[in-house]
Amino acid sequence: MENSIVLLGSTGSIGVNTLEIAKRFNLEVEALVAGRNIELLNNQIAKFNPKFVAVANREDIPKVNHNRVFYGADGILEILELSSSNLVVNALVGYIGLAPTLRAIKLDKRVALANKESLVVAGEFIDTSKIVPIDSEHFGLYYLLGDREFSKLYITASGGAFRDWSIEQIERATFKDALNHPNWSMGDKITIDSATMTNKLFELLEAKWLFNTQNIEAFIEKKSIIHALVEFRDGSTVAHFAGVDMKLPIAFAIEPNLNEQILKPINLLEIGSLEFLEIDPKKYPIWQIKDDLLKNPHLGVVVNASNEEAIRLFREGRCTFFGMSDIILDAYSKFRDIRPNSIDDIIIIDREVRDYIAKKYR
Amino acid sequence: MENSIVLLGSTGSIGVNTLEIAKRFNLEVEALVAGRNIELLNNQIAKFNPKFVAVANREDIPKVNHNRVFYGADGILEILELSSSNLVVNALVGYIGLAPTLRAIKLDKRVALANKESLVVAGEFIDTSKIVPIDSEHFGLYYLLGDREFSKLYITASGGAFRDWSIEQIERATFKDALNHPNWSMGDKITIDSATMTNKLFELLEAKWLFNTQNIEAFIEKKSIIHALVEFRDGSTVAHFAGVDMKLPIAFAIEPNLNEQILKPINLLEIGSLEFLEIDPKKYPIWQIKDDLLKNPHLGVVVNASNEEAIRLFREGRCTFFGMSDIILDAYSKFRDIRPNSIDDIIIIDREVRDYIAKKYR
Repeated sequence: MENSIVLLGSTGSIGVNTLEIAKRFNLEVEALVAGRNIELLNNQIAKFNPKFVAVANREDIPKVNHNRVFYGADGILEILELSSSNLVVNALVGYIGLAPTLRAIKLDKRVALANKESLVVAGEFIDTSKIVPIDSEHFGLYYLLGDREFSKLYITASGGAFRDWSIEQIERATFKDALNHPNWSMGDKITIDSATMTNKLFELLEAKWLFNTQNIEAFIEKKSIIHALVEFRDGSTVAHFAGVDMKLPIAFAIEPNLNEQILKPINLLEIGSLEFLEIDPKKYPIWQIKDDLLKNPHLGVVVNASNEEAIRLFREGRCTFFGMSDIILDAYSKFRDIRPNSIDDIIIIDREVRDYIAKKYR
Repeated sequence: MENSIVLLGSTGSIGVNTLEIAKRFNLEVEALVAGRNIELLNNQIAKFNPKFVAVANREDIPKVNHNRVFYGADGILEILELSSSNLVVNALVGYIGLAPTLRAIKLDKRVALANKESLVVAGEFIDTSKIVPIDSEHFGLYYLLGDREFSKLYITASGGAFRDWSIEQIERATFKDALNHPNWSMGDKITIDSATMTNKLFELLEAKWLFNTQNIEAFIEKKSIIHALVEFRDGSTVAHFAGVDMKLPIAFAIEPNLNEQILKPINLLEIGSLEFLEIDPKKYPIWQIKDDLLKNPHLGVVVNASNEEAIRLFREGRCTFFGMSDIILDAYSKFRDIRPNSIDDIIIIDREVRDYIAKKYR
């Protein structure tokens, strides 16, 4: 079991759950990294007494009740260098999560990774042996995979905010509509990604890097009880059922030989029934590139950069919900031939994709 | 991998499937034991060239194309003594399967056990470390259980022939009606046991002995896609999905490190949905004693003997469908205080239960 952690993204829902598990397991929290929620951060500092703290913006430093406060992207990297913890929980949102993942691995730390964009953008250049995934789907796969040879992996999708809307209704959907996730409450970005199915596309890419296979598929299971399935060579399929609660993967990241109750088990008789539905590219246009992206996973950087820009435009009311998919599909086709050979290339391509979209939509 | 087997019950559906797997894996079939289907047995002899053969009745011996034909219950035991195979596939039906299971284990052979009655009747006196179960439910549990600590086991039931019938309709059901299983075709006895839910009660008892727990439950999943679930201490539940085909557990009994395709994997999108239903003791009166029987598993001998006698009476038109449950529940209450201390006691109690019922229904 780990006895000390660095927590990046402490005030989000993964961060808060991580601190609950830290408290339960009596872990030292060596560092807390937050964004703009200084009030919650100060509460966490009072409870966990970290050695190092970082916030997003320099001007917030005076409000933080701590004497070693760093700031910005570089502040996170400085903290990683200074810390002695073997485990970094990376629950940062978006592209900014990549650099800390890379640095932590370079420093030979393990990374409990909730930041999806790290693997999506740069999976080719990340040593996944140092990574344990924090999300229901990849945790489920990890839980199910043993020594047997698998033939195919499956993850499930909730279907997001518009799964029961007609195409015509979705065409008129606002940013606020898209934030209304049917099954749980998460941050804005991941909730939008869930409505567009980009989140699931990213999870397929992550699975590709984590489990070294392109033979992976997703479908909709609305109740979010089954998270992952593994089809083994013999013809058996096994499935992972659990409540949606990140405390389970977090606890396993800290203690791989966990042997105590973290969640209340599900009750199938109460659940009554489950339904399995195809992901329809008419409702989720991003799904058109799924097979191609799995064959060309280095294009993840293009999908991620264009997605982050598209979400910004949608939030600003400058494109429609389906407009986001148009932007991503356009960038995907425009940058179809890129072939990054290093992290430096990734950084350049990310910039180019964002510039391309900024120019087109200025 | 085993290279030679003794097959008890070669002409039933498990037997036929076992021979398919034997052929595929190029196994020697050292002995074939059949009942009355001499024509099929002769075909099997021609194909597999066994050293020893046994049939149920002495008068069938001349019809068998083989020079070492044994007969009856003792014939089976003689063959076990003579055979050198390390693995015995016991697919006999009913109480007569018990003695060969015991003898095989005494001879230090492994038993691939499809005969449910062995463990139901005498689980307390059987070394289960020598047993691998051949049926979808226990195979599913075995497949799912690893090194993690479980908190509860589940197996599923199809619901049998009358699952969609009203109580009033079931009251008038005939033997022939009860043989009409919705999901697959099996022998008469197991099909009746499936309609009364006695089959599932027996499987719970078997699981009790095989996995050393009383914390085991069953529910109805009509499509028979999920066969078993394991709830682990951490709060995860894992499930085993597969087509209903005994070739899968048979293949694993022969080759525990199996790594090739035996069945076509299931397709959840084609299946579309699954439903989970409680087992209603109004429809399945035997279910009333489920908890008590799991707490007093030594009473399995009473349930089995009374069940075999009840089925005979139902087949002969001497009791109704629900009359079978009445007979079993009556015997269960009559013999509630027995406490067998040996296999010899089991044999005596089995006899007493049958005599009690015979006297009452003569």
